[in-house]
Amino acid sequence: MPATFHGVIPPVVTPRHADGTLDVESLKNVTKHLIDGGVTGLFVLGSSGEVPYMTNAERELAVRTIAEANAGAVPLVVGANEQTTNRVIDEAKKMVDLGADALVITSMYYAIGNAAETEAHFRAIHEAVATPIFAYDVPVRTHYKLPTDVLVRLAHDGVIAGVKDSSGDDVSFRQLLLATKGLDGFSVFTGHEVVVDGALLGGAAGVVPGLGNVDPAGYRRLYDLAKAGDWAGAAAEQDRLARVFDIVYAPGNRVSGGAAGLGAFKTALQLMGIIESNTMSTPMESLNEAETETIRRILVETGLL
Amino acid sequence: MPATFHGVIPPVVTPRHADGTLDVESLKNVTKHLIDGGVTGLFVLGSSGEVPYMTNAERELAVRTIAEANAGAVPLVVGANEQTTNRVIDEAKKMVDLGADALVITSMYYAIGNAAETEAHFRAIHEAVATPIFAYDVPVRTHYKLPTDVLVRLAHDGVIAGVKDSSGDDVSFRQLLLATKGLDGFSVFTGHEVVVDGALLGGAAGVVPGLGNVDPAGYRRLYDLAKAGDWAGAAAEQDRLARVFDIVYAPGNRVSGGAAGLGAFKTALQLMGIIESNTMSTPMESLNEAETETIRRILVETGLL
Amino acid sequence: MPATFHGVIPPVVTPRHADGTLDVESLKNVTKHLIDGGVTGLFVLGSSGEVPYMTNAERELAVRTIAEANAGAVPLVVGANEQTTNRVIDEAKKMVDLGADALVITSMYYAIGNAAETEAHFRAIHEAVATPIFAYDVPVRTHYKLPTDVLVRLAHDGVIAGVKDSSGDDVSFRQLLLATKGLDGFSVFTGHEVVVDGALLGGAAGVVPGLGNVDPAGYRRLYDLAKAGDWAGAAAEQDRLARVFDIVYAPGNRVSGGAAGLGAFKTALQLMGIIESNTMSTPMESLNEAETETIRRILVETGLL
Amino acid sequence: MPATFHGVIPPVVTPRHADGTLDVESLKNVTKHLIDGGVTGLFVLGSSGEVPYMTNAERELAVRTIAEANAGAVPLVVGANEQTTNRVIDEAKKMVDLGADALVITSMYYAIGNAAETEAHFRAIHEAVATPIFAYDVPVRTHYKLPTDVLVRLAHDGVIAGVKDSSGDDVSFRQLLLATKGLDGFSVFTGHEVVVDGALLGGAAGVVPGLGNVDPAGYRRLYDLAKAGDWAGAAAEQDRLARVFDIVYAPGNRVSGGAAGLGAFKTALQLMGIIESNTMSTPMESLNEAETETIRRILVETGLL
Repeated sequence: MPATFHGVIPPVVTPRHADGTLDVESLKNVTKHLIDGGVTGLFVLGSSGEVPYMTNAERELAVRTIAEANAGAVPLVVGANEQTTNRVIDEAKKMVDLGADALVITSMYYAIGNAAETEAHFRAIHEAVATPIFAYDVPVRTHYKLPTDVLVRLAHDGVIAGVKDSSGDDVSFRQLLLATKGLDGFSVFTGHEVVVDGALLGGAAGVVPGLGNVDPAGYRRLYDLAKAGDWAGAAAEQDRLARVFDIVYAPGNRVSGGAAGLGAFKTALQLMGIIESNTMSTPMESLNEAETETIRRILVETGLL
Repeated sequence: MPATFHGVIPPVVTPRHADGTLDVESLKNVTKHLIDGGVTGLFVLGSSGEVPYMTNAERELAVRTIAEANAGAVPLVVGANEQTTNRVIDEAKKMVDLGADALVITSMYYAIGNAAETEAHFRAIHEAVATPIFAYDVPVRTHYKLPTDVLVRLAHDGVIAGVKDSSGDDVSFRQLLLATKGLDGFSVFTGHEVVVDGALLGGAAGVVPGLGNVDPAGYRRLYDLAKAGDWAGAAAEQDRLARVFDIVYAPGNRVSGGAAGLGAFKTALQLMGIIESNTMSTPMESLNEAETETIRRILVETGLL
Repeated sequence: MPATFHGVIPPVVTPRHADGTLDVESLKNVTKHLIDGGVTGLFVLGSSGEVPYMTNAERELAVRTIAEANAGAVPLVVGANEQTTNRVIDEAKKMVDLGADALVITSMYYAIGNAAETEAHFRAIHEAVATPIFAYDVPVRTHYKLPTDVLVRLAHDGVIAGVKDSSGDDVSFRQLLLATKGLDGFSVFTGHEVVVDGALLGGAAGVVPGLGNVDPAGYRRLYDLAKAGDWAGAAAEQDRLARVFDIVYAPGNRVSGGAAGLGAFKTALQLMGIIESNTMSTPMESLNEAETETIRRILVETGLL
Repeated sequence: MPATFHGVIPPVVTPRHADGTLDVESLKNVTKHLIDGGVTGLFVLGSSGEVPYMTNAERELAVRTIAEANAGAVPLVVGANEQTTNRVIDEAKKMVDLGADALVITSMYYAIGNAAETEAHFRAIHEAVATPIFAYDVPVRTHYKLPTDVLVRLAHDGVIAGVKDSSGDDVSFRQLLLATKGLDGFSVFTGHEVVVDGALLGGAAGVVPGLGNVDPAGYRRLYDLAKAGDWAGAAAEQDRLARVFDIVYAPGNRVSGGAAGLGAFKTALQLMGIIESNTMSTPMESLNEAETETIRRILVETGLL
């Protein structure tokens, strides 16, 4: 297990046809593109996969499609995205049945919880589901920061196998790394695309980069450089990836925060010929032609087109 | 329709047995208690009904139970509580099939939306479901305040039949009332238990009071006094109800914000012999003996016990 | 004292010449306009007076000018706007020397405090300055909501003579009114222009309306109707004032939240011939011609021009 | 200039006697302790210096004392802590007269501004004061995150000489570093004590660590290791410092967020015999004996006592 969850595990985007239906062929292409790029795992039904916007039928179809395309090549880490404990358990069981090697689970949302409920939430899910659980810290969506002391306790008690941190709180990230250093079978991943060098220097096990859909090989390179102790090289690669990341600013405020970054990843993949359309889930707007041109320019400048 | 949605429409609590399972008999008792108290409608699967914590099976059972106990006495307004547009549509269709006379729907949550997506969200749901829709403004849960201009546009276009406002923003509440004054078939409800007199004075159609589970007759009295133009009487009744509302402060910070108010309502109903247990949904803690004693004292002082 | 602080106490705007310097003659005109409109007090150096943007020299000049123009006609309630306890005390002493009949004081800001520090803050200031203190609850600026239990304790201990509530939290406002009902020499004011009828119905002593600069007589009328028990009349007057309040939306998002409302008040006063220019304090932008036309139209429609 | 502002520039704490008055002798000792520790500059009147709580007289005394003790050894970077543009200008001029080599200035607070006003704010101050300006990004206090595009524009226009980042937003921190790479005379500092290795790896010029009061030599070592390209060594030193940083958690929630960290730094300095008392500015509580013991234990474990 400790040997399994590390490296680059991108959250797989969910392509749609122009009419909004899930595009199975493009999803297979993305999966292949990622595995060819050297990723060490696939995060299915993540925020970058637009999981919040997918119906239950679509979620099932996406997991089945990726699992088939992956064919056991790398581990499948699957999001069980629901708002409260018992609803997460129902969803998690479905995902395990569909082949999840690990589950990614947030704190409750829409609910008005606290630290004690959050701890009880993860313990109850762990009791109900044997599959390894990654706690997903994403306060920009849940509006609740997972407390470091709760995470450390859950880690030491074997309730969670790791943390996927998209909190943007680098201080608590470092404290979590220190407090779980050397803990067997526990791994901390950063979800922030542009600070991976620093995260790995601080002891992170890897990264879950949305931008990894676009440049999986770049993230793998960065990871390998870091593992080899070539930190200057890792920082240079990170700087290059940070310039690629500028694609997410192409739409400015024309679309929502949810639609901007994910729309940019899809648009890049479309430009690269990997997916058919950059269509977003309802009610998000897709990026337009001008924004597509901006993204094309950045991809050309950074050598990806 | 305009004649239907007005007055006192409490969000029905969802009683559980001590083992956590849904308590069907107690739920029937609560429904009867509310109808006997003179409520003009029932809000099923609301936040006060702990809908975020209920599994799909429990949601269905609760609606069926209340519908049966109600037997057509008053309209059923039912929450379709899901995080994004297409998921809400799936949920809304289920609730219509179960007998909903109107639907209560929030903006998206967990998603990172904006005003345009919010407007598209409500329009898409209205297109998919013919049943009247109340927009539920509850930023403490969704972390997004429904913009007044969006609500006014949706109202004038007949997309929404009303608003249930739990925003705590009395300024935008008044602006919404002014901008929809005299709009046929549109009604604005406040969700705040202690400012109903002022809301009705400003033109609100009614109230959706969680505390109405405990004292439905008090809210009906307040509503009738206001309709009769006896504003001093309405204010006096409101002051009495505000003192009853103090039960929600019984647990202080011992439990979460979600568990405090709802736990107090359940504890009061248990003390009044209407439900069997004050057990909360997982992972929320129930109120303890000391807190129960505080609540008993308040109920005695305010004449409810 | 209890007889003194009630009714309509508008926060006096601070007019500037087009070159940005304080316009003493216009400030005298505004003061006269307010007293002629029947206000029961003047709030000097409030947020609507742009106090955060005024230098110390300007603050002193403004208080001296208003005090002279007022000539003892109504009480002067003066803001002592500083970020922490000892700095407030220094500022408060200056304001008392300049003739303040009462002081308006917020919780700390920029500092990262808590409830205990907030209570100690007000107690220390009260100990240092004998003049009556109004606690000013304005979380949109301080980013801290004054806790109701702290306010109630300070009220009963005679530390504060009242509260000016701009919290937008109507629930805690009502709880504060209930908890201080009948407390001699203590008065609660709402700072929200469009919910004054409901606030007075709930027991508020009066209102501190920024919009009262534009229509002091309207607010006095509303107050008198409420005092006479004509609540339907009060609500109708409130509805009219809420339509006047629409002037604050004239600039939309072109200027900052700070500049929009205050800029609208100044522009209205300029159109009414009471002040020379609608120039705002650095670095706020003044409203432009198109916005001025919108405001002119609203003033004409509501009978103020 | 570019050669000047780099390395370790701790925000100097402001010691007080037990009676609350400023302790000049202890302040001299701290200054000496820092210079002996190898710091490359001193940040006077920073948040860690409790500047928000200091009266104007105390601010002047603190700057004079540190300037005298420093005797030109390292540059003095001085905070001009005021809430709006013209008030900052008045304060900045005072600090320049007292010997500031550079100024540290935040966006406005208590004011409700926006990006345009923020840019105008810094431009107006730069026009009024010739001394180099560091923009201080501290949203936890100002409740406004400095927009990266504004900072980049101000940097390229020579309005600001650098940024002190305490935003906790590592993504925008990296984007700022990339966008100002190689810009002559511009330097970016992190204010976060536990992620300095990653910040330097990403291109930061240095750190402004509150904890640097306690262990200036440790931060200098970390900086030197990073400059020498020994990143594994830098990370190890950072890990050690992160363990020292645990002293800030000693009081838990007993005191405010403002009092916890700064109280811990003062308590550590008192235990180390560098300052006389750990007394905090009014109305903050000082750490108690139990908390002092926790801190003593951490200092012993990390080799500082």
